[in-house]
Amino acid sequence: MELRGLSLIGFASGAPGGAVFRAFDPARAADLEPAFHAVSGGELERAVQLAAGAAPVWAKLTGAARNRFLRLVADKLDRHAAALAARAAQETGLPVARCTGEIARTSGQLRLYGETAERGDWLDARIETAQLERQPLPKPDHRSMLRPLGPVVVFGSSNFPFAYSVAGGDTASAFAAGCPVIVKAHPAHPGTGEGVGRLVTEAVQECGLPEGSFSLLFDAGFEVGQALVQHPLVKAVGFTGSLKGGRALVDLAAARPEPIPVYAEMGSINPFFILPGALAERAAALIDGLHASATVGVGQFCTNPGLIVLERSADAERFVKTLADKLTATPEAAMLTPGIRKAFATNTAARAQQPGVTVIAQGKTAMACGAAPVWFETDARTFLGNPGLSGEIFGPSSLVVWCHDRAELLDVARHLEGSLTATLHAGAGEAAEQGELIELLSAKAGRLILNGYPTGLEVSPAIVHAGPYPATSDGGRSTSVGTRALLRWTRLVCYQGFPDALLPPELQNANKFGLLRLVNGEWTRNGL
Amino acid sequence: MELRGLSLIGFASGAPGGAVFRAFDPARAADLEPAFHAVSGGELERAVQLAAGAAPVWAKLTGAARNRFLRLVADKLDRHAAALAARAAQETGLPVARCTGEIARTSGQLRLYGETAERGDWLDARIETAQLERQPLPKPDHRSMLRPLGPVVVFGSSNFPFAYSVAGGDTASAFAAGCPVIVKAHPAHPGTGEGVGRLVTEAVQECGLPEGSFSLLFDAGFEVGQALVQHPLVKAVGFTGSLKGGRALVDLAAARPEPIPVYAEMGSINPFFILPGALAERAAALIDGLHASATVGVGQFCTNPGLIVLERSADAERFVKTLADKLTATPEAAMLTPGIRKAFATNTAARAQQPGVTVIAQGKTAMACGAAPVWFETDARTFLGNPGLSGEIFGPSSLVVWCHDRAELLDVARHLEGSLTATLHAGAGEAAEQGELIELLSAKAGRLILNGYPTGLEVSPAIVHAGPYPATSDGGRSTSVGTRALLRWTRLVCYQGFPDALLPPELQNANKFGLLRLVNGEWTRNGL
Repeated sequence: MELRGLSLIGFASGAPGGAVFRAFDPARAADLEPAFHAVSGGELERAVQLAAGAAPVWAKLTGAARNRFLRLVADKLDRHAAALAARAAQETGLPVARCTGEIARTSGQLRLYGETAERGDWLDARIETAQLERQPLPKPDHRSMLRPLGPVVVFGSSNFPFAYSVAGGDTASAFAAGCPVIVKAHPAHPGTGEGVGRLVTEAVQECGLPEGSFSLLFDAGFEVGQALVQHPLVKAVGFTGSLKGGRALVDLAAARPEPIPVYAEMGSINPFFILPGALAERAAALIDGLHASATVGVGQFCTNPGLIVLERSADAERFVKTLADKLTATPEAAMLTPGIRKAFATNTAARAQQPGVTVIAQGKTAMACGAAPVWFETDARTFLGNPGLSGEIFGPSSLVVWCHDRAELLDVARHLEGSLTATLHAGAGEAAEQGELIELLSAKAGRLILNGYPTGLEVSPAIVHAGPYPATSDGGRSTSVGTRALLRWTRLVCYQGFPDALLPPELQNANKFGLLRLVNGEWTRNGL
Repeated sequence: MELRGLSLIGFASGAPGGAVFRAFDPARAADLEPAFHAVSGGELERAVQLAAGAAPVWAKLTGAARNRFLRLVADKLDRHAAALAARAAQETGLPVARCTGEIARTSGQLRLYGETAERGDWLDARIETAQLERQPLPKPDHRSMLRPLGPVVVFGSSNFPFAYSVAGGDTASAFAAGCPVIVKAHPAHPGTGEGVGRLVTEAVQECGLPEGSFSLLFDAGFEVGQALVQHPLVKAVGFTGSLKGGRALVDLAAARPEPIPVYAEMGSINPFFILPGALAERAAALIDGLHASATVGVGQFCTNPGLIVLERSADAERFVKTLADKLTATPEAAMLTPGIRKAFATNTAARAQQPGVTVIAQGKTAMACGAAPVWFETDARTFLGNPGLSGEIFGPSSLVVWCHDRAELLDVARHLEGSLTATLHAGAGEAAEQGELIELLSAKAGRLILNGYPTGLEVSPAIVHAGPYPATSDGGRSTSVGTRALLRWTRLVCYQGFPDALLPPELQNANKFGLLRLVNGEWTRNGL
């Protein structure tokens, strides 16, 4: 995989000449070749214009054509997995095996969304036929479905170089929904981005799709991203990253003359409740499971369990002590970037200074970019009185909150901000009595997990990766993972009084794609 | 119907003592009794707290229970239709027959949304069962569905005293989705609002639903509305009104610490394209149809055809001349409020001053609050060069845009801002050739109408009342009319690893409500 360090503007390369930056190997604390050149304002403009030109073609592509393209991208990713994983591991400090696994997840995601596009049920096609004799007024024939929004901008994430970057979930779902995509590559793994981006461009060309179906822009700062979000021809934005970064984009988009949606997946502390019965039944398994979930990927997961809530008891104290010892003994590993490593150090140091907060685990670090677990404990009263303790610390740090009794534990649940997940561990006889707690948690998170772990997200038609603010910018009304992700890039269009031939094929009488449609109030795959 | 002029805070009445205002009869230019008292800050707070308290109960109501409640509200509306229509006609200047018809539409809407809630298919319930033996990782059981957002604030509209006010579409869809509702009554028809609001409160009590399921707040200014949109316990807002008012609420909601969605249906010019073939075939019918659509309700419809686009020809000039004469001869009628009447006068006077714009029809007015049609014409070049001409004038005013040729007509289509509707009239042989124009218009409006009229909106599962900004604040991703309106008040929640008994009944194996669910990738009404 030869890298050139240039943006991909439709089928052309960007010119060198912009500000230069390099990827950084956090495990070896060394810059990586080649230099990457920031995209110019003119190139950005051309990428957007090309995308706007491609949008009408994409809007009319059949689901089968979108699927063919997405499958081709998936096949190319799989074929180049070894080289891509090697580069990504260098750029992120993540193990090669994790990168390889993430490529498989990414290609699987592309195929699942492609299949969803081809099957077409997701379009929510609805038909009401005319009743011209109806009194007091005739009823007109009208038919509606979801149609693509137009050019979508996707921001690559730092922590998922494949699954939430250039050809990741936002890109795959936008393509599947029929939108051209402009990716702003994450500057922490530009080589991975270029490698994947060139495969996507190849697939665009091999499928005979228009130039501008895809562009990939490099920039080490914020200006390119801001310009993209503010561009009048851009119709929606996908973002995975920090609360600060996400909210800045959300605010920019909301202040446009024509506001557009920014689907930002941001901060989440993922509360993890452990009830006495669970401790009594399986403390050892819980220690292993929670330790693994909290340290995988150096804690750099949006579903990292960042808040552990339990009632104080001898069992519970023994559990936390054993877990803390295991955390302290956990070897360090490189974080994704020096900036993330620095923020982790700053945030954990600040938390250690909070009144009523104690460090209970602190692993050893020696590497420049390394981090090891840093865990804290506090009591529920302190937690409820200090809003700063509800903030996410990105990395391997969690806060144990000790509750005096059940009532205090419910207070903590009531007090939580929005999260992507909320987990509950209960004993066999205990789970059935958790109705109130489950109902409280269902108002706080997009995914509730019973006796499991929040990391390790299934990509499926039923999954939800979302949550009330600040977990996601739209308050959990949509999901960024799973086939419902396609819905984010659409709007509703209704056709009234149209002859069959002038309707989109999905709404024509014949139902040639065999879609599940709501016809005069009944869901059916039949034609009319 | 005895009116008290007091807000309804849960089951109690607000206290007198706030700023006082009265409804105004625009046809007789006279104040109406009684005085209405603005809600106090404490009462507003109590309404929101009660709604937040009622929210968990509403979230667990079955669809059948929601339906029972909505049907009861509908029955009460129908039973009191005569008194309600009489008061609404006084407060709005609309004919009693229109008000009576609107009550029927409103009760029909309540019943349709209630039925949708009971049927439950709209919940998008999805189930993926576990595969514990799967490699490399076991697949967990996970199931998801839409759940209600919590307290919803609805702003009554000026122009639909029933269908988009206290028990109108936003309220009905929010209840159907499982959310308590706080209505900020429109100050132009507070008596109608109180009358309807008391029926809703009765229904809440008769169904044994909690206090706070519904409140109705009076205020003649902006403060109460602003406080509601900024209240941390309010989770979503529905609004129907002006672009300026809607955008102000959207901006307020976006600037909250926790942003919430404002579904605002705002300005729309509803372009109306007339092709030569249509003129040749049925000019007389078109004149009658367009005249009726443009003058019904004194042009005070969000779907009023405000922009008429045609190619210049002798036929077309004759058509416009005849239509203009008919418009000039149209008798005046009272507009909804003196403020709306004043804005209409100001806006039409300003448009008449625009270079290249000519008045082609001007009806006579004598009443203080009366308005008659004021139509303008201009050429496409002037229209394309003057953004002010794309603005909606609320009331019986439209702008005829003369195009030199087909290319210019397509340019006008390309240049349009978002609208709720776009209409195309074509001749029998002509329609089949309109693919490009239809595709252009489908990017500009939520509902495309062929050889019909935009006013007279069917309320159905397939209808779309939405459009790109500025027609609606969310760019047409949702609809405020039709059964899809329920989706606006929900978020996704996923349950992973839950035993059957702890799941919401809609996600349990048995499928006791017979919902259409996506089970392991297949849509089915079967249980597991």
